[in-house]
Amino acid sequence: MKSLLLSALVATAVMGASLADEVKTAGLKPIPSNAKALEKLTSNPKNPTTAAKIELGKMLYFEPRLSKSGLISCNTCHNLAIGGVDGMSAAIGHKWTANPHHLSSPTVYNAVFYSQQFWDGRSPHLEDQAQGPMQAGPEMAAPKDHVAGVVTSMPQYISMFQKAYGKDVKITFEKIADTIAVYERTLVTPSRYDAFLTGNKKALTAPEQKGLKTFIDKGCATCHNDIALGGTMNAFNVTAQYKHMNVGDFKGDANGMVRVPTLRNITETAPYFHNGQIATLSEAIKEMGRIQLGVDLNNNETAEIETFLKSLEGKKPTVIYPMLPASTAKTPKVDVVNN
Amino acid sequence: MKSLLLSALVATAVMGASLADEVKTAGLKPIPSNAKALEKLTSNPKNPTTAAKIELGKMLYFEPRLSKSGLISCNTCHNLAIGGVDGMSAAIGHKWTANPHHLSSPTVYNAVFYSQQFWDGRSPHLEDQAQGPMQAGPEMAAPKDHVAGVVTSMPQYISMFQKAYGKDVKITFEKIADTIAVYERTLVTPSRYDAFLTGNKKALTAPEQKGLKTFIDKGCATCHNDIALGGTMNAFNVTAQYKHMNVGDFKGDANGMVRVPTLRNITETAPYFHNGQIATLSEAIKEMGRIQLGVDLNNNETAEIETFLKSLEGKKPTVIYPMLPASTAKTPKVDVVNN
Repeated sequence: MKSLLLSALVATAVMGASLADEVKTAGLKPIPSNAKALEKLTSNPKNPTTAAKIELGKMLYFEPRLSKSGLISCNTCHNLAIGGVDGMSAAIGHKWTANPHHLSSPTVYNAVFYSQQFWDGRSPHLEDQAQGPMQAGPEMAAPKDHVAGVVTSMPQYISMFQKAYGKDVKITFEKIADTIAVYERTLVTPSRYDAFLTGNKKALTAPEQKGLKTFIDKGCATCHNDIALGGTMNAFNVTAQYKHMNVGDFKGDANGMVRVPTLRNITETAPYFHNGQIATLSEAIKEMGRIQLGVDLNNNETAEIETFLKSLEGKKPTVIYPMLPASTAKTPKVDVVNN
Repeated sequence: MKSLLLSALVATAVMGASLADEVKTAGLKPIPSNAKALEKLTSNPKNPTTAAKIELGKMLYFEPRLSKSGLISCNTCHNLAIGGVDGMSAAIGHKWTANPHHLSSPTVYNAVFYSQQFWDGRSPHLEDQAQGPMQAGPEMAAPKDHVAGVVTSMPQYISMFQKAYGKDVKITFEKIADTIAVYERTLVTPSRYDAFLTGNKKALTAPEQKGLKTFIDKGCATCHNDIALGGTMNAFNVTAQYKHMNVGDFKGDANGMVRVPTLRNITETAPYFHNGQIATLSEAIKEMGRIQLGVDLNNNETAEIETFLKSLEGKKPTVIYPMLPASTAKTPKVDVVNN
């Protein structure tokens, strides 16, 4: 019994060792466990992360009054309580408008690791991305001057901006988006998988390690790579014949391609694909094998990969729900019925 | 200079002392500063408060999947970040439906101190109240079995209910509402006013004390009394000729009366009145004087009362934003476009 256990441990260690090489070759990378390294990696040199900006950015992330209606915040569609998404197949915004291209809300968690934002990858970073939904008609529907007007109407926000950017700060729409982006840069979710990648061979169970190997061997990591296991390329053809296609008129990028999403916390971000037409993870795995890799993954292989993917569920940052300043006489009035 | 300062202090102390009597006579009561006394006061003997229920109730309070759409939680309209309200003149719910009677969302903060819930006071306590918005078509629009189905589809919720109510708990819609109510019972916001009422005469400034005296002398405390400075009676005639009346078809209670709202955190809960037709606090004070007390409060008196009311801004409980369990195959599917 003892020697059996020992063999199992040795086998795991050996598999772990060779798997580590495979992981490296596949371009899979961990979230750094070192806080300084992580901050360096996630900070934008043009918009450095500071504690004052994080706190302010968090408030603005949860601030519904930035929207034209006063009802929708970033957190409405990228809800930190439920995996950084809304669970909808198509995002619902201003006046209950579904995304006109039937696109779902991608998770905000670990989006900092993406090299391209939005489902067509058109945006290079979070500072740029954050400007989109605030203005988009079917989302927060707010003109730039509305957003800036709301923020500058409340003395507490003004003093927080001064603390974050200096006394002479000009509070613009762009500065507001920058600040939200700084907060979003902190929303990373390290998991047991990262511990495994940084050398703790016991951090993943044997079945999870087997699943990781299958994930790599079958080719999934060709697109789902780097730190986010996604976010580095557009690789899915928007016209691919997959279950429930032809939903919405989304055209993808100039080549008709859709950005590869992260697989971190994938158990929390159903329904799947850019148009949310796949309900379960096993179904999504099979469809991806068939469409992207040209292989019919059998039930065993699918289950193995699913077991691995579940290990990507990460630890979310603790979020103290912000208490926001009271509106003032200068705060733009909202007319809920007509807006 | 020294004697001047001394006189001022003595005058304040004397005013404080006689004001304390006035406060008592007027039926104004503090939020108990003693934690045990507060818990006893806020707990429902038929649904006792426990730490396990509070934690679960908080999760359910923030749980958008309880709603028919999957998008609306209790916190959507009673947003703890902005005074426990949504800032709308009429609540906006399922499919962006405005409250058909053009009623605003009353604050959840300190609602535990109300002896009657809803704008017509038809509900005796929070356990009963919490059942309303979940089911109401223009609010969360969820049938009872949907709500229970969502909760029982996630193993973490089941185990938390078992921890809170015992292994044999039956997770019903009513039990879910009970649990949310337990959380809401913790949402109290003590302020400097409470410190003043419990004997710290310096807790309110001289102008705030003067405002409190004017508030009582003019008769405001006739209706705005007890701990919440409101919530004990229906006293406003729904047909009163006030600015912007005739909004909505709200009929009040059987006598056409509207429930008196709390004045705690009143600086954070504009727009005012049951139909949100008054934008500023000074305007609300003047209208109330004219309609309810038959007096035309001059600008000085109005400012005095407003100064006092601002001191009712209380300390909000720290809320760790909950991380909710992932949906499962059993979780009722939402169809965002058609629901």
